[in-house]
Amino acid sequence: MKRKGRLIVISGPSGVGKGTVVKALMDRDPRVRLSVSATTRPIRPTETDGIQYHFITHEEFERMIEADLFLEHAQYVGNRYGTPEKAVDEMLEQGFDVILEIEVQGGVQVMHRRPDAITIFIAAPSFEELARRLRGRGDTDEEKVQMRLQQARMEYLIAPQYQYIVVNDLLEDAVDDVQSILRSEELQSEHQQHLLKEAL
Amino acid sequence: MKRKGRLIVISGPSGVGKGTVVKALMDRDPRVRLSVSATTRPIRPTETDGIQYHFITHEEFERMIEADLFLEHAQYVGNRYGTPEKAVDEMLEQGFDVILEIEVQGGVQVMHRRPDAITIFIAAPSFEELARRLRGRGDTDEEKVQMRLQQARMEYLIAPQYQYIVVNDLLEDAVDDVQSILRSEELQSEHQQHLLKEAL
Repeated sequence: MKRKGRLIVISGPSGVGKGTVVKALMDRDPRVRLSVSATTRPIRPTETDGIQYHFITHEEFERMIEADLFLEHAQYVGNRYGTPEKAVDEMLEQGFDVILEIEVQGGVQVMHRRPDAITIFIAAPSFEELARRLRGRGDTDEEKVQMRLQQARMEYLIAPQYQYIVVNDLLEDAVDDVQSILRSEELQSEHQQHLLKEAL
Repeated sequence: MKRKGRLIVISGPSGVGKGTVVKALMDRDPRVRLSVSATTRPIRPTETDGIQYHFITHEEFERMIEADLFLEHAQYVGNRYGTPEKAVDEMLEQGFDVILEIEVQGGVQVMHRRPDAITIFIAAPSFEELARRLRGRGDTDEEKVQMRLQQARMEYLIAPQYQYIVVNDLLEDAVDDVQSILRSEELQSEHQQHLLKEAL
């Protein structure tokens, strides 16, 4: 019997480096795939449709909601983002672990819709460090930085609903942490029942 | 605030190599200590009191049970074995992760008395392989081997009550598994609440 993949939700505040953690994880583990979200925000010159996002219209987005085709969807700064469920399920059936790198709003939806999902919140070592990272990536508009920190505070209040909280201090440690989580989740006795068949 | 250690129960059938896994784990991780059990069985010429076991009389053992000084205790082939609770708690207070390498009978007692314990059952890749290992360590008496396999079958029926089941196929993999479990347990959001204080 072929192994079915696991659904993994990774959330965390803007600037915490969750994209970097996810990328490093995929470099290490060929069983891990990243889900491509659909969005209504305009495509940027550096982007390709279907790679960073599936770029769709507001009307298409609404139609997908009505047809219940999203695993989760959320609104962010006037644009809409959603995870098409079918593509995720196909990758899971093929045996890939599928990562959803999504906002907490969507993360909570996945917890309810797919209670078997592994949910990980990536936190910063401190808010001071988070502010430093936000400024470091060229966000020099102090008002924007303060707004993102305020948003982060709200996200931290939702973080306890995630199963795991990983601090992204040193990248390598954070990736080790996530790999430990994925490894140990497979060892939980409820997933190891096949080992007992000889005893029965 | 000093980190308090975790209580770790490791059980598994005779011959599965749990002692080897525990020893390799301690070689890798200086935070891990092994609890020394008390027993009523006679000391062997190769043993030292207080190292392999605390060798005590049946009367002392009874007195300790009555005074509720055991974290768990069990009977095995006419001899009694128990874990003195005070020594374990002292090591935990000092910040060590303390391993109890005990029978499932004692393991279930610990689950009830200390629900925060991390419980790991070490399984063999197969019963055939378990039989091979039992014979390989010089147990040439086939009746004894069959008795141990029968005992293993009983233990496997209790295994689902453990949180994790690790297969000891290749030793290094099994030790990696246990280390992943210990690492990911620390990342569970209920143990990471201190990270949220800045948001509150």
